[in-house]
Amino acid sequence: MAELFDLVGIFVFALTGALMGVRKRLDVVGMAVLAEITALGGGIMRDLVLNVSPVAFQSLGYVLVPLAAATVVFFWHPHVTRVMPLILVLDAAGLGLFCAVGTAKAMEYGLSPLHATLLGVTTGVGGGMLRDVLAGEIPTLLYDRQLYAVPALIGSAAMAGMSWAGLNGWPVALGAAVLTFGLRIAAMRYNWRAPLARGVGE
Amino acid sequence: MAELFDLVGIFVFALTGALMGVRKRLDVVGMAVLAEITALGGGIMRDLVLNVSPVAFQSLGYVLVPLAAATVVFFWHPHVTRVMPLILVLDAAGLGLFCAVGTAKAMEYGLSPLHATLLGVTTGVGGGMLRDVLAGEIPTLLYDRQLYAVPALIGSAAMAGMSWAGLNGWPVALGAAVLTFGLRIAAMRYNWRAPLARGVGE
Amino acid sequence: MAELFDLVGIFVFALTGALMGVRKRLDVVGMAVLAEITALGGGIMRDLVLNVSPVAFQSLGYVLVPLAAATVVFFWHPHVTRVMPLILVLDAAGLGLFCAVGTAKAMEYGLSPLHATLLGVTTGVGGGMLRDVLAGEIPTLLYDRQLYAVPALIGSAAMAGMSWAGLNGWPVALGAAVLTFGLRIAAMRYNWRAPLARGVGE
Repeated sequence: MAELFDLVGIFVFALTGALMGVRKRLDVVGMAVLAEITALGGGIMRDLVLNVSPVAFQSLGYVLVPLAAATVVFFWHPHVTRVMPLILVLDAAGLGLFCAVGTAKAMEYGLSPLHATLLGVTTGVGGGMLRDVLAGEIPTLLYDRQLYAVPALIGSAAMAGMSWAGLNGWPVALGAAVLTFGLRIAAMRYNWRAPLARGVGE
Repeated sequence: MAELFDLVGIFVFALTGALMGVRKRLDVVGMAVLAEITALGGGIMRDLVLNVSPVAFQSLGYVLVPLAAATVVFFWHPHVTRVMPLILVLDAAGLGLFCAVGTAKAMEYGLSPLHATLLGVTTGVGGGMLRDVLAGEIPTLLYDRQLYAVPALIGSAAMAGMSWAGLNGWPVALGAAVLTFGLRIAAMRYNWRAPLARGVGE
Repeated sequence: MAELFDLVGIFVFALTGALMGVRKRLDVVGMAVLAEITALGGGIMRDLVLNVSPVAFQSLGYVLVPLAAATVVFFWHPHVTRVMPLILVLDAAGLGLFCAVGTAKAMEYGLSPLHATLLGVTTGVGGGMLRDVLAGEIPTLLYDRQLYAVPALIGSAAMAGMSWAGLNGWPVALGAAVLTFGLRIAAMRYNWRAPLARGVGE
């Protein structure tokens, strides 16, 4: 079940990577590379910090799913762009799943709830940050004032708290993922925005 | 004592990260993320190379101090900018401390003095490079001709040399940090500049 | 022998890093830093994924050879630029060697042939990607439609396949390197290009 969640998250993140490739007029190779890095980057960062060999270099699905996403975008990107609102919804789902799974894994490895939360957020947002930097842009996470990191933080903290209280397993992770997902969707729907530093004009 | 040094360095580096956030008109979340990455990036690189789990994911202070720095910048950034010369002095101090502590830790883990020096420099400059790349700029370290990496290199080499000769402990580290600090301050004060490649016009 | 191959690859990659430094008008320190990162970045990524301490921080030659390359470029960069076609040929050789050595090392550490191939490609292209990002550019690998990653992929896959079939040792690695090298040279010579996404105008 967790494996399936992961693969869905990977597929969606890879879609956003490949679409960035189209927007930047990259060729099919660049699209595939960007899809892989976007999908796997966050999990690789997590595993490096946990000092274990990254899952991305052990699982077949992790490597092949981003290629499938790049293929879809290569042939049908106008359709994919047309369903951009759907992509954003799926990306929110991917974010929720990655944060929950990343936090749970960090707790398993004995990190404190605070640090597990931080690593969960890193898992969720790391790949997208790499995607944006490689595409020559400031990471959306940093300048897009629509909340992205905050839902990730709250969902990860909820997961860490539940795990700390002895609650684990995939229903709990799913709950934490839904929390991130819901907050992210609400942030987009109601245009919740993080403030700029005091005195910096809008 | 070493812990206190570390936290001072982290605070100052985080200030530079959050100030970059203001300059790029990032929101408070972006400022906090940039503060964390600037402050912790170098140490995380060091620990990954040493193949140990990064201290940043074990210590409470490492995570909270950058948030404090981001809060200060969020509310009082015009004042912080006004004391920019002070920030540059503190940044030089942070650089010295990070290089010394990073080099000492690398020697402890059995690296040769040459490699410990290299890793000490990485510890000192890594976070700032990440900050600049994430903000969409070429790292200051690379194009700012005012010496930054060279003081880091000399202080780290001094630390490695002393450690190799059997001298360790925080007074030694403090001495190495002061060396980097003094050279960096002198480089700014007397405008010491690294040469461009032969034939490249000024 | 493998050590010598490695050092040749490192020298050539470092040349491309230092030349990028000249192009971006970096000073000698920036050139040296960029030379080191370009030359060592891919191998460091590989070793982090394999969860071992990076060779770059253990070998003397790995650290000094990039400095030698930076020195050459610092004094004689117009000559180096004049032999740019030669650099591209040497870069293709470096790519081939890094991919073969990286894949072979990954197989030794028990990765599947698929994942060893992926890690071999990462070893070959990682340093150049870091170079481009640090210089404020989208990695050549991503937008240059002349095939670069594909020869790396084919050579790495050949190495993984042979190693999987029980064939190892440096003649095999050399063969895989020559395969990457030949395909990369052919891609430049005959201007083989990867397609853009369907419907994206040329």
